[in-house]
Amino acid sequence: MRVSELSRSSDVPVATIKYYLREGLLHRGEATSPNQARYDDTHLRRLRLIRALVEVGGLPITVVKDVLAAVDDPDIGMHHVLGRAAYAVTGTGDDGGEFADAAEADVRAITAHTGWRVAETAPALAGARSVLARMHELGHAPGDDTLLSWAEAADRAAEGDLKAIARNENREDAAETAVVGTVLGDALLAALRRIAQESHSAARYPSDCRPPS
Amino acid sequence: MRVSELSRSSDVPVATIKYYLREGLLHRGEATSPNQARYDDTHLRRLRLIRALVEVGGLPITVVKDVLAAVDDPDIGMHHVLGRAAYAVTGTGDDGGEFADAAEADVRAITAHTGWRVAETAPALAGARSVLARMHELGHAPGDDTLLSWAEAADRAAEGDLKAIARNENREDAAETAVVGTVLGDALLAALRRIAQESHSAARYPSDCRPPS
Repeated sequence: MRVSELSRSSDVPVATIKYYLREGLLHRGEATSPNQARYDDTHLRRLRLIRALVEVGGLPITVVKDVLAAVDDPDIGMHHVLGRAAYAVTGTGDDGGEFADAAEADVRAITAHTGWRVAETAPALAGARSVLARMHELGHAPGDDTLLSWAEAADRAAEGDLKAIARNENREDAAETAVVGTVLGDALLAALRRIAQESHSAARYPSDCRPPS
Repeated sequence: MRVSELSRSSDVPVATIKYYLREGLLHRGEATSPNQARYDDTHLRRLRLIRALVEVGGLPITVVKDVLAAVDDPDIGMHHVLGRAAYAVTGTGDDGGEFADAAEADVRAITAHTGWRVAETAPALAGARSVLARMHELGHAPGDDTLLSWAEAADRAAEGDLKAIARNENREDAAETAVVGTVLGDALLAALRRIAQESHSAARYPSDCRPPS
C-alpha cells in the first residue's frame, strides 16, 4: 500500500509516519520510485504498536524509540528486552525522605517473603520504596498481611507475563509480547484489581450496597 | 499553626491552601481574628493526602474534591467510598472496535474463573475490555493461562486492599486507607510487578543475563 493508505488504515497522519521513518521507529518500505515506497502489513502492525504504547502506556516517543530498538535488535535477549520495557515505564519517584528506612524495611519484607532476586539499581525498587514512603507519611502504610498479599499478587502477575512471552515461536514476537504485556498490562491489571475490589467489598460490606443485579 | 507555617510544613503554597479552603477540600481552621485562623495536624495531614493523590495518583483537583467529599461524609459506607475512589481513577478507554467481542469473552472467562460479581456499569469493566481489545488488535492477546494468572493476581491484590481497610478502628481512617490504597496502590503494584518480572525473567533466561549480584 502507499503511505496515504497506510495513514488511513493506521489512523496515523502521513507527516507522523514520515517522522517515524526518519527516526527509525518504522522500517522503510520497498522503494517503487525515488519519492515513493510500498508498505505492507508489517508497517501497519508497527504503527499500531507505537500508538498503543503512546496512547495506553503514555510513553514519550523517545522512550518508544528506545524500547522498539531493543525489540528489533536480534542480539538483545528476552531478559533485556523485558528489562528495557520495564525500566522505560517505571518512575523512580523521590527518595522517600524521613520515611525511606521504613519503606526499605517493607521492601526487604517483600523480597524475603517472595524470594525475588533483583538488581539493587532496578528503578522499580526505587519506585516501590518511594510509594511506600508516601504511604507511611500519610499514616496509611500497609500492614504486613496487606504487604504480602500485594507481593503475592505481583508475583502471580509476573508469572502470567512470562507465560505470555514463552508462548511465542520466534524472538521478535516474544519481544513484542514482552513490551505490550509490560506497558498495557499495567492498565489491565489496575482495571482487574478494581473489579476484584468491588466484588470483595460487596461481600465484606453487604449492608452497605445494593445486591449485585 | 498559622497558614504560613502550614504552608512551609506541607510544601503547599498559601494561595493553594486558600483555594482548597474555598473549595472545601480542606476544613476551616479555628478563627483567631476576622482575617486569621489557627491550623493543626489534621490540616497538615489532609494537605499531604491531597498532594499524594495529585502527584502520585495524577488525579485532577476536581476529582480529588469528589473523592474527599466521600471520605468526609459519615453517611457514605465503605463500599461506596472505595467505589468512588476506584471510579475516579479508572479510565474506560474506547469501546474496543472490531475486537470488542473478543475482549468481552476474555472478561467473561476471568469473572467465571474468579467468581467476581460486579455491576455491568463499573468503569473498570469497560477499562479492562478496552485494553484487552487493544491487545487483540496488536496480535498479542493474552493466552488463557496468562489471563487467569492476571485475574488471580488482581484477586490477591484486592484481598490485600480489603485487609488494609479492615485494620482501621474508625470510619474516617478506613475511608482514607481505601483512597490511599486504591490510588497509590496502582503505582506500588506496578513497581512490584516489575521487580517480580526481573526475578522470574532471570530464572527463565539464565544465559541471557549476568548472575544477580
